[in-house]
Amino acid sequence: MPAPTAATAPADPAGLGPRAARELFRAGLRVPTAGYAAGYAQANLIAVPRDLAFDFLLFAQRNPKPCPVLAVTEPGETRADIFDGDLRTDLPAYRVYEHGRLAAETTDVRDVWRDDLVAFLIGCSFTFEAPLLAAGVPVRHVELGRNVPMYRTDRACRPAGRISGPLVVSMRPIPADRVADAVRITSRYPAVHGAPVHVGDPSALGIADLDRPDFGDPVPVRPGEIPGFWACGVTPQAAVMASAPEFAIGHAPGHMAITDAPDGSYQVP
Amino acid sequence: MPAPTAATAPADPAGLGPRAARELFRAGLRVPTAGYAAGYAQANLIAVPRDLAFDFLLFAQRNPKPCPVLAVTEPGETRADIFDGDLRTDLPAYRVYEHGRLAAETTDVRDVWRDDLVAFLIGCSFTFEAPLLAAGVPVRHVELGRNVPMYRTDRACRPAGRISGPLVVSMRPIPADRVADAVRITSRYPAVHGAPVHVGDPSALGIADLDRPDFGDPVPVRPGEIPGFWACGVTPQAAVMASAPEFAIGHAPGHMAITDAPDGSYQVP
Repeated sequence: MPAPTAATAPADPAGLGPRAARELFRAGLRVPTAGYAAGYAQANLIAVPRDLAFDFLLFAQRNPKPCPVLAVTEPGETRADIFDGDLRTDLPAYRVYEHGRLAAETTDVRDVWRDDLVAFLIGCSFTFEAPLLAAGVPVRHVELGRNVPMYRTDRACRPAGRISGPLVVSMRPIPADRVADAVRITSRYPAVHGAPVHVGDPSALGIADLDRPDFGDPVPVRPGEIPGFWACGVTPQAAVMASAPEFAIGHAPGHMAITDAPDGSYQVP
Repeated sequence: MPAPTAATAPADPAGLGPRAARELFRAGLRVPTAGYAAGYAQANLIAVPRDLAFDFLLFAQRNPKPCPVLAVTEPGETRADIFDGDLRTDLPAYRVYEHGRLAAETTDVRDVWRDDLVAFLIGCSFTFEAPLLAAGVPVRHVELGRNVPMYRTDRACRPAGRISGPLVVSMRPIPADRVADAVRITSRYPAVHGAPVHVGDPSALGIADLDRPDFGDPVPVRPGEIPGFWACGVTPQAAVMASAPEFAIGHAPGHMAITDAPDGSYQVP
């Protein structure tokens, strides 16, 4: 694997097109992608051997809130209809799993990619952050330049074949008087997780401490704000950890695939 | 296979609950199900060997207008989460395919069912006929007590693995001044084919003669009416005919699985 070229964060990440953003990541830039390439949908990656692909696709079909499928490749393919790049190099970072255990976190997976891998691109809630911001609903992790906090919950997904695992959620603190707006706006994007699955008390989801997310960075919930929890596309990776399939590759949480699909293509009236 | 018990059409098919309707079909009643069990979603059936299940599920994911997936069974299962009956007996009629050719049309498939079959229940446009009727939009085939007319089009679905085939559509004649209402109402049910894929000239879909449907019965298009074409859940069976997998079982077109899911559960705002 060639060493990644040095690449620095751009001055205007939101203004990059998807191709330009992917080129930076391919050159080695390793950053969370929230706020990048405004107007283009971002996606979670999970790639599994062909033998497991039906179980994963069925898991997604049975758990559409955390696992809205945007695209599925043929075995071995490295681009997708909504991603005109190389799935092995064009995300900022990857996680490689062997028998459910994290074997590596890297910026390039060409050396471990297999011809039998089927890649799933799963909708990501970063897609509805631009409309939230446009409506004046604050998005704390974007404000702070951090990764979104994500948590394993105590809610089990519906299993499918050999695949099972917990629901993972992302959290955004919402001012109490904007909760209704946040619900209304995100409801219009069902393909990228849609409305929150839970608003309020984290302990009802089995989350012990908001300051200790399972993935991503903590962000403060300020007085007058309510934590909103959205189903998260890291759920398939939690299922990999729980189900221990022989091999899988995912994105590093928060380090998404930037697609060529406009956000608007996933908006319903 | 036991001979079907004689069963006659009920006086009030719309008033039957799903369980009562399924019992009549299990007893041998063989009728198109449009107008049965008002308020409950109906579904298309396609069951294929486990080895083909990923290709079929991917075909459905890539062609969501004709193939909205409502439920998928584990291999060999004969009931589904939204269908608390026996998928082998509780539809009015089935079609059995061998290598893409129609091998039998029958009211009971227990003798040919296999432990490796994965059954897909796919949304059916009969589901939005009750709201059309409630809004005063006529539904000709229900008026006439016929099966809905269905046509193979010249539009290819997006292939997936070994599965490919043409888009199949159902047709309803709509008064010109109700076309907008028909679009608006059916748009609210994306999981059961949603808005029409085409309104007007059948030749633009490669349909030579509306009086000769490929499946179901012809119905008259009267002066002042426009034919409306909706994506149809017989599309997976057309794909079976085109792709010739070793084995498959579908419903007889128009003779649907009546589910326990209320229509309203598939309505979006």
